[in-house]
Amino acid sequence: MNAENFLQPQRVIDQLIELNQRTGNADGAQRLAWTEPWEQGRRWLRDNLSAMPAHVEEDQAGNIWATLPGASPKALIIGSHIDSVPNGGWLDGSLGVVAGLEVFRRFCRQGQPPTTIRLVAWAEEEGSQFGQSMFTSRAVTGRLDPNELSTFTDKAGLRLVDVIGRWGIDLHTMGAARHHLANAGAYLELHIEQGPVLESLNLPLAAVIGALGVERHTIQFTGQTSHAGSTPMSMRRDALAAAARFALEIRNIANRHAGVCTIGSVVTKPGIVTAVAGQCDCTLDQRHLNAASLADMLADAKAASHQIAAEENVEVNWKRLYRVDPTHFTPELIELCTQAIAEISGSTYRMPSGPLHDAVEMMKAGIPTAMLFVQSLRGLSHTKEEDTVHEHLRQAVKALDRLADKTVAWLTR
Amino acid sequence: MNAENFLQPQRVIDQLIELNQRTGNADGAQRLAWTEPWEQGRRWLRDNLSAMPAHVEEDQAGNIWATLPGASPKALIIGSHIDSVPNGGWLDGSLGVVAGLEVFRRFCRQGQPPTTIRLVAWAEEEGSQFGQSMFTSRAVTGRLDPNELSTFTDKAGLRLVDVIGRWGIDLHTMGAARHHLANAGAYLELHIEQGPVLESLNLPLAAVIGALGVERHTIQFTGQTSHAGSTPMSMRRDALAAAARFALEIRNIANRHAGVCTIGSVVTKPGIVTAVAGQCDCTLDQRHLNAASLADMLADAKAASHQIAAEENVEVNWKRLYRVDPTHFTPELIELCTQAIAEISGSTYRMPSGPLHDAVEMMKAGIPTAMLFVQSLRGLSHTKEEDTVHEHLRQAVKALDRLADKTVAWLTR
Repeated sequence: MNAENFLQPQRVIDQLIELNQRTGNADGAQRLAWTEPWEQGRRWLRDNLSAMPAHVEEDQAGNIWATLPGASPKALIIGSHIDSVPNGGWLDGSLGVVAGLEVFRRFCRQGQPPTTIRLVAWAEEEGSQFGQSMFTSRAVTGRLDPNELSTFTDKAGLRLVDVIGRWGIDLHTMGAARHHLANAGAYLELHIEQGPVLESLNLPLAAVIGALGVERHTIQFTGQTSHAGSTPMSMRRDALAAAARFALEIRNIANRHAGVCTIGSVVTKPGIVTAVAGQCDCTLDQRHLNAASLADMLADAKAASHQIAAEENVEVNWKRLYRVDPTHFTPELIELCTQAIAEISGSTYRMPSGPLHDAVEMMKAGIPTAMLFVQSLRGLSHTKEEDTVHEHLRQAVKALDRLADKTVAWLTR
Repeated sequence: MNAENFLQPQRVIDQLIELNQRTGNADGAQRLAWTEPWEQGRRWLRDNLSAMPAHVEEDQAGNIWATLPGASPKALIIGSHIDSVPNGGWLDGSLGVVAGLEVFRRFCRQGQPPTTIRLVAWAEEEGSQFGQSMFTSRAVTGRLDPNELSTFTDKAGLRLVDVIGRWGIDLHTMGAARHHLANAGAYLELHIEQGPVLESLNLPLAAVIGALGVERHTIQFTGQTSHAGSTPMSMRRDALAAAARFALEIRNIANRHAGVCTIGSVVTKPGIVTAVAGQCDCTLDQRHLNAASLADMLADAKAASHQIAAEENVEVNWKRLYRVDPTHFTPELIELCTQAIAEISGSTYRMPSGPLHDAVEMMKAGIPTAMLFVQSLRGLSHTKEEDTVHEHLRQAVKALDRLADKTVAWLTR
């Protein structure tokens, strides 16, 4: 019996549209974690799973798990996140969940598989409200500190413990969900690229080789506020001029090391038209797949900032916001993923992920992991303009399905 | 009889300290126009004038005038502004008023002068609340449009007409104050430099040759917001990178034309650490004493912005905020001012004013005008750190006094 007789890739598109209609509005997807539209999305998923011969449960962190027992308890887990950013797109997260649902449905129709097959819909990946990305997969992998988060509030002053508590989630018992990883043999996730690379190469799909490590800092340049009319150019201590030189230099640094560096925010103080800026606060985000190169990029940026500060007669101060090491996915699974993509699309491409994903958490937890990317139109995401050609979505479902079969075979090797 | 027998420069310092104690606090001067501390400053001035043989009146715009009739009705006017910015310094504006008061007192003690001598304390020069610089001198010179301002509000929504109305000032009748200029023969103003030039030259005083013309614009660069992790450097449309290149180029333009150019405010959107900025709004302030050079600086900046935008694959849009032509003070009075400074300090220097002043309004109204600058320590102004060496203040009072005598002689030439 051919698996693809059961797989209906077009149903994934139809169901994504249905999910988006139920949980979005004219401004885009609205499944912000721990809100009513998000719960409607979860209910929609549970309704779909209820027709299948699967055990469905919600863990202590709010994640929904569906399990089809196999000949072996060793489990292939397919998953992605059900939450969206506010005014988000119709594919970010939900594509991986609904495509996973389709592959899970296919397995259910084929009778007992060689290994256990599980679908997981992570409750919160985006961290939109509290800045806690991969919040509920980190709860499961044990990489979440309840004590650190117990006093967290959002910008409006709402407490994290109260927001999740409304849905029966207790910060201090979320970690009990980790038992779900006990028999995990492999984790697969399909996601949109959220970048412009595949479109520029005219390719539908890529095997993801890992996730870039990240160094994130705030950098403050401090000069001297002075009058725009009465301060000669040569006598200025212009914090913005220093920041501008730095903003251009980080591009050279990124290019030299083949990484990415971004200054996304610049705040000038006093920030008025008639005064030379005495202070300029920048954010710097640096990413690289190679840990040594990431460290080199950071060192180069620090050196450049100090040299520029000296030349501009201003002060510079760095403060780390965040860092994470690069992640490399499992080579054997990357190979299987590449094969699956080649079989479906006739081409093959490997690339790292710039954004972080729940798959990164699974890999960090020691579970063999692979990811597939499908092309994003214009690289847009986190906006209602996010989109992907439907034929590419159907190919992505097929490739995920192929990869699932190959991974089951690998788990029973 | 020697005029300097009557002049007491130290009294100006003592009275400035007294005025600041009455109307300021630990954060600096608080004579924001149309507030109680400002009225206390005006009352202090009226109290001081009441002991002199002078006619004191408040005009329809809130300016205080003291008049000592001379043999000729032709009047020498000495003035500056009584208002301060919030948390301002002890010298900006008030130095010119209190030094003018001292010179006026000296004239009063000498009996009838050859020409009429007048002191004016402008009610509002700073425009702190409504952005209307030189508000009450413009009312007097007729360069204020009541209809344009009748709906003006401050950031808190307070209406300008209500704020000035509380003090009995009617926007639509302020212009009636213009009769005060009927016999104006010359206008003199002493002000702190508010810049670092005189300190760098180790000079106490300068004759001001005019005020720089100003071109003020907002410049919006529009690229494409994209993910900091998933967008390769070569595929970005980074609005901040374009703005950074522009911020550096305007320094070259300023230096090439020997003017000043300032980007005081940069706002990045969305302005988050994880996204390439899709939009960047800058302010540009350009100043030059030569109208043609000012026009050239603007044209160069526009050309540079368009070239940079094309190279960075972003859009650029300009919007004018404000413009004013350069002002040149009266050559004969600049010469007298230079002589007075040389006689008092033994050195001589001429420079333009970067900031605008009420004196510029007088010159624009066709009144022969001169200004003196006294050194500012570290170029600081509009802050409680604003300061000047006391010996320089005493020299400034003496020089203003000398210039007043020379100007009276010039008026009766």
